[in-house]
Amino acid sequence: MERVPLERKVLNENDRIAADLRARFQEQGTLCLNFISSPGSGKTSLLERTLSSLPKGERVAVLTGDIQTENDANRLKRYGFPVKQITTGGTCHLDARMIERHLADWPLEDLDLLFIENVGNLVCPSSYDLGEEAKIVLLSVTEGEDKPLKYPSIFFKSQLMILNKVDLLPYVPFNVNAAVENARKVHPGIEIVKVSCLKGNGLDEWLIWLEKKRQAQKEKQPAAVR
Amino acid sequence: MERVPLERKVLNENDRIAADLRARFQEQGTLCLNFISSPGSGKTSLLERTLSSLPKGERVAVLTGDIQTENDANRLKRYGFPVKQITTGGTCHLDARMIERHLADWPLEDLDLLFIENVGNLVCPSSYDLGEEAKIVLLSVTEGEDKPLKYPSIFFKSQLMILNKVDLLPYVPFNVNAAVENARKVHPGIEIVKVSCLKGNGLDEWLIWLEKKRQAQKEKQPAAVR
Repeated sequence: MERVPLERKVLNENDRIAADLRARFQEQGTLCLNFISSPGSGKTSLLERTLSSLPKGERVAVLTGDIQTENDANRLKRYGFPVKQITTGGTCHLDARMIERHLADWPLEDLDLLFIENVGNLVCPSSYDLGEEAKIVLLSVTEGEDKPLKYPSIFFKSQLMILNKVDLLPYVPFNVNAAVENARKVHPGIEIVKVSCLKGNGLDEWLIWLEKKRQAQKEKQPAAVR
Repeated sequence: MERVPLERKVLNENDRIAADLRARFQEQGTLCLNFISSPGSGKTSLLERTLSSLPKGERVAVLTGDIQTENDANRLKRYGFPVKQITTGGTCHLDARMIERHLADWPLEDLDLLFIENVGNLVCPSSYDLGEEAKIVLLSVTEGEDKPLKYPSIFFKSQLMILNKVDLLPYVPFNVNAAVENARKVHPGIEIVKVSCLKGNGLDEWLIWLEKKRQAQKEKQPAAVR
């Protein structure tokens, strides 16, 4: 059984395409963010809140992945920005080739911001580079504060942890300090923002983080293209 | 890239070991249940509630899977029954070989009931038969009622859906009827029990389901061994 070498081959191929995507994003000054979490932690809700806060003219688009259904794309299209559903049909993660293919008819020079909502899975998506500038992991307070220790790879690789559903803190056994400590054990430099996508708490802080990243991405763009 | 044939080879090998495990479970009258859900839906809490309700002399054991940490085994050991942690070290699911290996020093004739808590992942574990009598999927009301449609494989393959955290229904946008309808769209025959592992609601109904299954498993045992 030559499982490991084959997996490596698949990942090498993925990394090659992802590096190519990353170069194109940087060339065009497009900030690409890859949102990863368990099913139901609030990725789509966070994107709904974010899209609804952006001025209509913003050059923003979303690719949203699921195994089945177009539900998320339908929810996100209501905000007036281009959205495409990537239906993986069983595959537990998005890969760089799916992103490349779904971007084929979206000229990147028209995009300042590309959100990728991954398949709901705290494990497998962490192995697939999509060319993003940053991975963002969502954890909701209903999931338990030990998740960063149990699923370390995605917390290690994410620049930002969004702790969602803080409105439920009075009703669930969840120790915020322990969760933060666990995330920092795995990844000392991880940034953390606490929000409730249902009630709206903390979203300003997230939008400030996003704006800073957009500025930084613009500054990475080669002067000749700016 | 011969990815698909290789995956098939891995799954065929898994199915062979799982069939062997299933035959051994039936021979010994051991009821084996495989619990699958997203991270944090309450698999460990349900097992804690279940173990604490069983008389001390019951012949029950637990195998609990995680990518990292022994947290769940430590939580479950407090109830006085044998518990082993299977730490997969990155693998996103349990497979039949892991079960076979961890059962090597547990004589099945001493076990009436074997609980397997899978890695928290609503996708990949559904492809791996562990020789169980039934898969049980947990969905918590914080995850959204569309999950059966988005992750159909596990809802299709599970005999029972446990809808957990019903104590949070007043605080989250979740339509129980829609969730039930979605689960039945994917799997018309799925049984459904609604519980709160935190508050205790509905656990009697789960324990009755469990007892019925145990009786049925005993009846499958060849008369000679009974």
